[in-house]
Amino acid sequence: MSLRKSMVNRGLLILTCFFSFVIQLCLASKTRHFKWEVEYMYWSPDCMEGVVMGINGQFPGPTIRAVAGDTIVVELTNRLHTEGVVIHWHGIRQFGTPWADGTASISQCAINPGETFIYRYKVDKAGTYFYHGHYGMQRSAGLYGSLVVEVGEGQKEPFHYDGEFNLLLSDWWHKGSQEQEVALSSKPFRWIGEPQTLLINGRGQYNCSLAAHVTNSSSPQCQFRGNEQCSPQILHVQPHKTYRLRVSSTTALASLNLQIGNHKMVMVEADGNYIQPVAVDDLDIYSGESYSVLIHTDQDPSKNYWISVSVRGREPKTPQGLTILNYQTTSASKLPTSTPPVSPLWNDYNHSKSFSNKILALMGSPKPPTTYNRRIILLNTQNTINGFTKWAINNISLTLPPTPYLGAIKHRLSNAFDQKSPPENFPNDYDVMKPPTNTNSTYGNGVYMLEFRTTVDVILQNANALATGVSEIHPWHLHGHDFWVLGYGEGKFREKDAKRFNLKNPPLRNTAVIFPFGWTALRFVADNPGVWAFHCHIEPHSHMGMGVVFAEGVHLVKDVPNHALVV
Amino acid sequence: MSLRKSMVNRGLLILTCFFSFVIQLCLASKTRHFKWEVEYMYWSPDCMEGVVMGINGQFPGPTIRAVAGDTIVVELTNRLHTEGVVIHWHGIRQFGTPWADGTASISQCAINPGETFIYRYKVDKAGTYFYHGHYGMQRSAGLYGSLVVEVGEGQKEPFHYDGEFNLLLSDWWHKGSQEQEVALSSKPFRWIGEPQTLLINGRGQYNCSLAAHVTNSSSPQCQFRGNEQCSPQILHVQPHKTYRLRVSSTTALASLNLQIGNHKMVMVEADGNYIQPVAVDDLDIYSGESYSVLIHTDQDPSKNYWISVSVRGREPKTPQGLTILNYQTTSASKLPTSTPPVSPLWNDYNHSKSFSNKILALMGSPKPPTTYNRRIILLNTQNTINGFTKWAINNISLTLPPTPYLGAIKHRLSNAFDQKSPPENFPNDYDVMKPPTNTNSTYGNGVYMLEFRTTVDVILQNANALATGVSEIHPWHLHGHDFWVLGYGEGKFREKDAKRFNLKNPPLRNTAVIFPFGWTALRFVADNPGVWAFHCHIEPHSHMGMGVVFAEGVHLVKDVPNHALVV
Repeated sequence: MSLRKSMVNRGLLILTCFFSFVIQLCLASKTRHFKWEVEYMYWSPDCMEGVVMGINGQFPGPTIRAVAGDTIVVELTNRLHTEGVVIHWHGIRQFGTPWADGTASISQCAINPGETFIYRYKVDKAGTYFYHGHYGMQRSAGLYGSLVVEVGEGQKEPFHYDGEFNLLLSDWWHKGSQEQEVALSSKPFRWIGEPQTLLINGRGQYNCSLAAHVTNSSSPQCQFRGNEQCSPQILHVQPHKTYRLRVSSTTALASLNLQIGNHKMVMVEADGNYIQPVAVDDLDIYSGESYSVLIHTDQDPSKNYWISVSVRGREPKTPQGLTILNYQTTSASKLPTSTPPVSPLWNDYNHSKSFSNKILALMGSPKPPTTYNRRIILLNTQNTINGFTKWAINNISLTLPPTPYLGAIKHRLSNAFDQKSPPENFPNDYDVMKPPTNTNSTYGNGVYMLEFRTTVDVILQNANALATGVSEIHPWHLHGHDFWVLGYGEGKFREKDAKRFNLKNPPLRNTAVIFPFGWTALRFVADNPGVWAFHCHIEPHSHMGMGVVFAEGVHLVKDVPNHALVV
Repeated sequence: MSLRKSMVNRGLLILTCFFSFVIQLCLASKTRHFKWEVEYMYWSPDCMEGVVMGINGQFPGPTIRAVAGDTIVVELTNRLHTEGVVIHWHGIRQFGTPWADGTASISQCAINPGETFIYRYKVDKAGTYFYHGHYGMQRSAGLYGSLVVEVGEGQKEPFHYDGEFNLLLSDWWHKGSQEQEVALSSKPFRWIGEPQTLLINGRGQYNCSLAAHVTNSSSPQCQFRGNEQCSPQILHVQPHKTYRLRVSSTTALASLNLQIGNHKMVMVEADGNYIQPVAVDDLDIYSGESYSVLIHTDQDPSKNYWISVSVRGREPKTPQGLTILNYQTTSASKLPTSTPPVSPLWNDYNHSKSFSNKILALMGSPKPPTTYNRRIILLNTQNTINGFTKWAINNISLTLPPTPYLGAIKHRLSNAFDQKSPPENFPNDYDVMKPPTNTNSTYGNGVYMLEFRTTVDVILQNANALATGVSEIHPWHLHGHDFWVLGYGEGKFREKDAKRFNLKNPPLRNTAVIFPFGWTALRFVADNPGVWAFHCHIEPHSHMGMGVVFAEGVHLVKDVPNHALVV
């Protein structure tokens, strides 16, 4: 079902309710059916034609809009010719439906060409989410879209707004995802390079610039009729109103910074959880994260303003992504006369850390347990295995098995994966500030078996990569849960650092970043029966082994559809 | 196991036999084990780097050499990241092992990433064969290699030779097979164009020419040290000897013509069957065919000679593929001073027909039954379905189902494919000389159920494609059988044409061509329990629906490995 159709349907429902006074129908949660077909297609996301993985002929895939408490049913048919496919519903915790998490080798077998798999799950919490492929590098290939959950009827958001916009951010390469995979798996390793273009709702400009008239860009000024696949979606606003911008990042690689010329943003939501409102000039957003910000259209209504997206955390070799905030009192074709906002320096990590530390839970949010039952420390290193460059966690580079864990654990298939638990920690004398002395790592696919309903602390420990003086940003994403972000720190985590944990108002999130040479502490309760991926959301990194697998209460999982279990 | 290792092993076996006089060991058939891993890798087949689908780090895949009666065991592990894979052993009839035929959706499920499937089958008949991917367009991606079966110990070929060479011919595109698939499946249709390069044993030259010094090529003269992936494999010969050249074509598209400067070729084998020796100046070879030719090195031994491969049947836009026949009395680096052989005109179909008609069974070969039990007439048309360009057989464009036929028929799964038999014929008033008046065709996946051990005639009827005056060459390949080629004809096949069938010495083959606007008559005995693909061997054509499925005696199939049945 297309976005438009879905919205029309929703409109009809509200009308029906209004006129018939069948109030209960309105309050009752709704089941929303979608029939999707995944296929490759020619597309020009950045005005250069390439091949994208689309859904129902659209790129990005259709936006799902639902109301908290609704059940989403997606009948997904794989129309690829030789590739399997799955879709992960990023941020949806899948209580009671772990088989619908859409992670190949973990929650289900990849859906084979020609086959249909039915995802059925509840969206229990309002918020800004998205969905994407979770097999090989199919997210890089363009398999993603937005998932917006509104508060239930009769419920209210803890903030007011007059209208809303959705900005799904991504990065795009001209080299296809298949060749990117080959590059990453080659010996010697070949890095895929920085993305050619940043996309806002799947639209960017590679061979022209929206801002050529005010910058010394070597690209010509873009000329659009407006119906091109790469023409920007302009945000049309009325003066003196408050708008909610839902911003999510499904980039394969890039960490981003979003700005709106002359407009402050007030952050109110992170990863589907309310946060203490905080005003910022620019928004750092890492792959896997989502935010809602409020903007007030209080600027000169005779002008339009830039919305810009820039690369953070890696030396930027990709032009800013741009679109326009249009005061409808002014022609939308009137370009801003100022230069687009200048983003913080890519390596100004103090700016980034200060930003991350500003994010705190809204008063009244669930608080973390004050103690933990198990603490797992995960060292993030770059390694080699037989000359192949890999990422490893506690010296194990995750290689997913063909048989999905969920079925394997439920049916006690002892040969489906390593039965030995992966390490809880790394050697005490490991120097995180230096390249690994023994670069050799091993492949592995063991599982951290978590006692059901226990509280788990995870300390993500960053380290020096293979090259001296290099440590990268990694945004880690947990499936099946939100976690509390208890704190960030520098260097190697020490027991005494735990004293500084924020147990008062830590934000609940599903993605948290580790900064170069630093650590990040997370806490969650293992209360969701299933098997859950926890991995760096940079797709080349997770593809190179940067992830682990958690399992909890699998014996309590019932009614797993057969097709989620069979290899 | 690499080719070298396999040959060394064979050498050791012979030595062991010689010295220990354990003659029975020599006579006993042997089981040959191979462990293969399929993966994408960077390669430069034509001096331009691209991505190929390789086996054990080799392109083309390792050559299998065996002796008639041997059992081949290939443990195939899929190291691709999101794609399934299968390998078809082209020309091997798979008596008793129909599940090892390596056709996705027909004999087995595609092998999923990370999984291993064991192909185990007998090579019962000496001959020149090859293997290749049979899923999506994985043959175009480079998944192929040679399979040579020598006569059993104590047996003799019906001709003498002093040495042999193997030439596996293919065509190569710079656009990846994935993008080719997208092009073919797009609306409007986008043709993939002619190949950039013809490859001989996986080697061709795109940005240089071996013959620049004697032609007015715009490419520079190739300079090779000899170890480049694209340097030609030179055939080193002694004067006054007889050599057997095993030539097979696994092209995705191109029909080819092979010539050797100054040397006549005597054809002695076609598709693993002996034929009446016949001398030719040039050899037409269509995708899916194989030949053995004998050459006598009776030319001036102070010179070297071109071996050239050129395009037939389509307006050639691809340079000749070249390598060199080197008389070892002369330096191999001495290039021929004459221009490479000029091939017959691409559209000189009389030449092609005359060539095909020269191929007759060697005296003593099995003769066809003189009568048939069932005659199926298959009209080959180009059509559209909902605006998509397709090929169709009797107006049905084959779309393979996800559940393999072999398991579905054996276990009577009535919903796995269309239970209605496809048409036996096409409307009497259909004009094969004109474009279809109703271009609309339908998708289908029904099966021709053949009575076990009956004699089946197939009349392949060519027709005008969508464009007026256009009719293409289609080389049809049958799995699980050889068929007798009873004759070729012009225009629409008529009952009386059957009187001219050659029942005396028709060649046994597994691939036969239909010429533009013509027909070809085949006969085979349905004596091999299993389900068998019959399709145009041009990969884009079969991908666009140009094939049918035969099934016979499936109830007699035993011991199907589970992994060949499960979807």
